[in-house]
Amino acid sequence: MGAREAGLPAVVPAVGLPSRVTIWEVGARDGLQNEQAVVPVEVKLEFLDRLAAAGLGVLEATSFVHPRWVPQLADAEDLLARLRQADGVRYPVLVPNERGLDRALAAGVRHVAIFGSATETFAKRNLNRTLDEQYAMFEPVVARARAEGLDVRAYVSMCFGDPWEGPVDPTRVAAVGKRLMDLGCSQLSLGDTIGVATPGQVEAVLGQVAAAGVGVDAVAVHFHDTYGQALSNTLAALRLGVTTVDSSAGGLGGCPYAESATGNLATEDLVWMLDGLGVETGVDLDKLADTSAWMAERLGRPSPSRVVRALRG
Amino acid sequence: MGAREAGLPAVVPAVGLPSRVTIWEVGARDGLQNEQAVVPVEVKLEFLDRLAAAGLGVLEATSFVHPRWVPQLADAEDLLARLRQADGVRYPVLVPNERGLDRALAAGVRHVAIFGSATETFAKRNLNRTLDEQYAMFEPVVARARAEGLDVRAYVSMCFGDPWEGPVDPTRVAAVGKRLMDLGCSQLSLGDTIGVATPGQVEAVLGQVAAAGVGVDAVAVHFHDTYGQALSNTLAALRLGVTTVDSSAGGLGGCPYAESATGNLATEDLVWMLDGLGVETGVDLDKLADTSAWMAERLGRPSPSRVVRALRG
Repeated sequence: MGAREAGLPAVVPAVGLPSRVTIWEVGARDGLQNEQAVVPVEVKLEFLDRLAAAGLGVLEATSFVHPRWVPQLADAEDLLARLRQADGVRYPVLVPNERGLDRALAAGVRHVAIFGSATETFAKRNLNRTLDEQYAMFEPVVARARAEGLDVRAYVSMCFGDPWEGPVDPTRVAAVGKRLMDLGCSQLSLGDTIGVATPGQVEAVLGQVAAAGVGVDAVAVHFHDTYGQALSNTLAALRLGVTTVDSSAGGLGGCPYAESATGNLATEDLVWMLDGLGVETGVDLDKLADTSAWMAERLGRPSPSRVVRALRG
Repeated sequence: MGAREAGLPAVVPAVGLPSRVTIWEVGARDGLQNEQAVVPVEVKLEFLDRLAAAGLGVLEATSFVHPRWVPQLADAEDLLARLRQADGVRYPVLVPNERGLDRALAAGVRHVAIFGSATETFAKRNLNRTLDEQYAMFEPVVARARAEGLDVRAYVSMCFGDPWEGPVDPTRVAAVGKRLMDLGCSQLSLGDTIGVATPGQVEAVLGQVAAAGVGVDAVAVHFHDTYGQALSNTLAALRLGVTTVDSSAGGLGGCPYAESATGNLATEDLVWMLDGLGVETGVDLDKLADTSAWMAERLGRPSPSRVVRALRG
C-alpha cells in the first residue's frame, strides 16, 4: 500500500509557524528558463492550467527578457495571449528592464517582477551593471509599473553565497533589498541562487532585512536545492514569520547532475512538509504530483522532486 | 569557480543548537543491505577505511541477520575478520536475535544494535512477532550482550508512519522505546523507515519519548529522505537537543525511483548543513564526497546525495 492511501503524512502542527503560506510557483518561468529543452507553448499553457487546477494561487508565467538570452521563453507574448487566466490566480511575469516592461504592459500583465543582485560580481555578469547602476536601471521600470497600477516584486539573487565572491554579508543583502523596496516594490524575494545557504544564515539575513525596516510580510524566500538544503532553510524562514515561499513544481530548473545545478525547491517537497505541519497552502498534492510527472515526461527526464519520484516514479 | 573553492557554505551559527553532533554512519549496513547489487567484501573494507579517514567516528559495519534474508551482508564474518579498525572509531553491528549475537561475539564485536518495531504490522512482517513478543525475543539478546560488556543500541522502526497502519501514535513510540531501554539498551534510534515524517511530528515523538523518561542524550534520529524531509526533520530534532544523527554516505540505501524507496539521509547533505551552522562533526566533507562518488561508481548508479551530485557529478 502507498503512503498516500495510508493517510500520510500525518498532520501534526509545530509551535511558532504561520497557519497559512502562499506558494509562489516559479516552475513555468524560473524552472523552464533553466531547462535545456525548449518547451512548446501548448505544453506551457497546459502546465499553467494544471498548476492552477492543483490549487496554486500565484503562477509566475514567463519572462520578457530578450530571446537572445533566454530562448526558452521567447514565446512570452504568444503564451500570454493564449493563457486562460483562472479565477483568483495571479500570473506575474519577469521584466528585466524598460523594454521588457513595455512588452509586459502591451500583453496586459498586472503583476511584474524585477531581478536584482546582492553582489557586484553577479550584477556585472547577469546585468552588466554595478550594484549602484542596477538601481538606476530599475528605477524607471518600477516607477512606470506603479504608475500603471501594477504590483512589483523584487528578486534579490545571491543573498547567501556567490560562486565568485563566496559568503555574502547579510547587511549588504539588507541594504540592496531596502533600496529596491524604496523604489516602490511591494515584495522582496531573497534568493539562494546557488543553493548554498544553511539555516543560521537564513536567520541572519532575515534579521538584517527586518532591521533595515522591511517587514516580514513583504519578504519571500527563494531556495535552490543544489545541496539539499532548501527545505530546512524554508523551515527556518517560516519560524521567523515568512509566509511566502517560492518553489517550482517537480523541482524544475537546472540539471541536477552538475555543480552548476540550480534546481529550485520542489513544490511537492514543500507541500508535503506544510501538509504535515497543518499549514494551509490550498494545494492538492496528488494533482500537483500528477502534473509534474506529466511535465517530466514532456521533458524526457525524471523529476528531481523526491515526492514526485516516490509517488509517481 | 566551485562553491567549495569560494569558501562555501558560510559558517553562521543558529541559536539553540548543539555545538557538536555525532554522526552514526549507517552506509555500510543500512545502505548496502538495501542496494540491489551485492558488493564485494574488498570494496566494503575500502569503503569503511575511507569513511574512517573522512573523520566519521561511528561506522555501523554490517549485520548478523541470516544470509537468506539479507544476502548483501552474508560476508559479515569475513568482513570483520579483515577489517582494520581505525583508532577511536566504533564499529557497531546489527544483531537480530540470539543467533546473530553469537556470531557477533565470536567475531569480537564490542557494540551491537537490535532492530525493533513501533507498529504491530511491521513487527509481524519484519520479525514475525507481535509487539509484546519482540521484547521477549530481545530480552536475552540484550541481557547477554550487557553481561559480555557490550553496548546495545535499539532501533525503533516506523516511528512516524507505517505504510499499512498510517500515522503512528507518538505515545506508542515512546512506550516501545521505553520498554527497549528498560531491557538494558543505552541508546534509542527513532526511525522514519518510510520517510514520511514532518517536523511537528518529530517534536511530538521526541516530546513523548522524553515524557516516558528517556533522556535526550540517549536518543538518536534516523530519517529517510524518500519525500525530501530528512534534513528539515533533523533540524527540528537538533533544536530539541538531539546530538546523535544517523545518516548514510552518499544517501546509500534503496532505489530512489520507486515508492518503496528507503534512501537514508545522505551524510554529505547533513554535513553541509552542520558545517554551515558551525556544528562540529569531525567530518571532512570533500573526502567524504570523494568516497561516495567512488562508491557510486562501484554501484553503477549516481549517488542520491544532492551534495555529492553537485560537487562530484
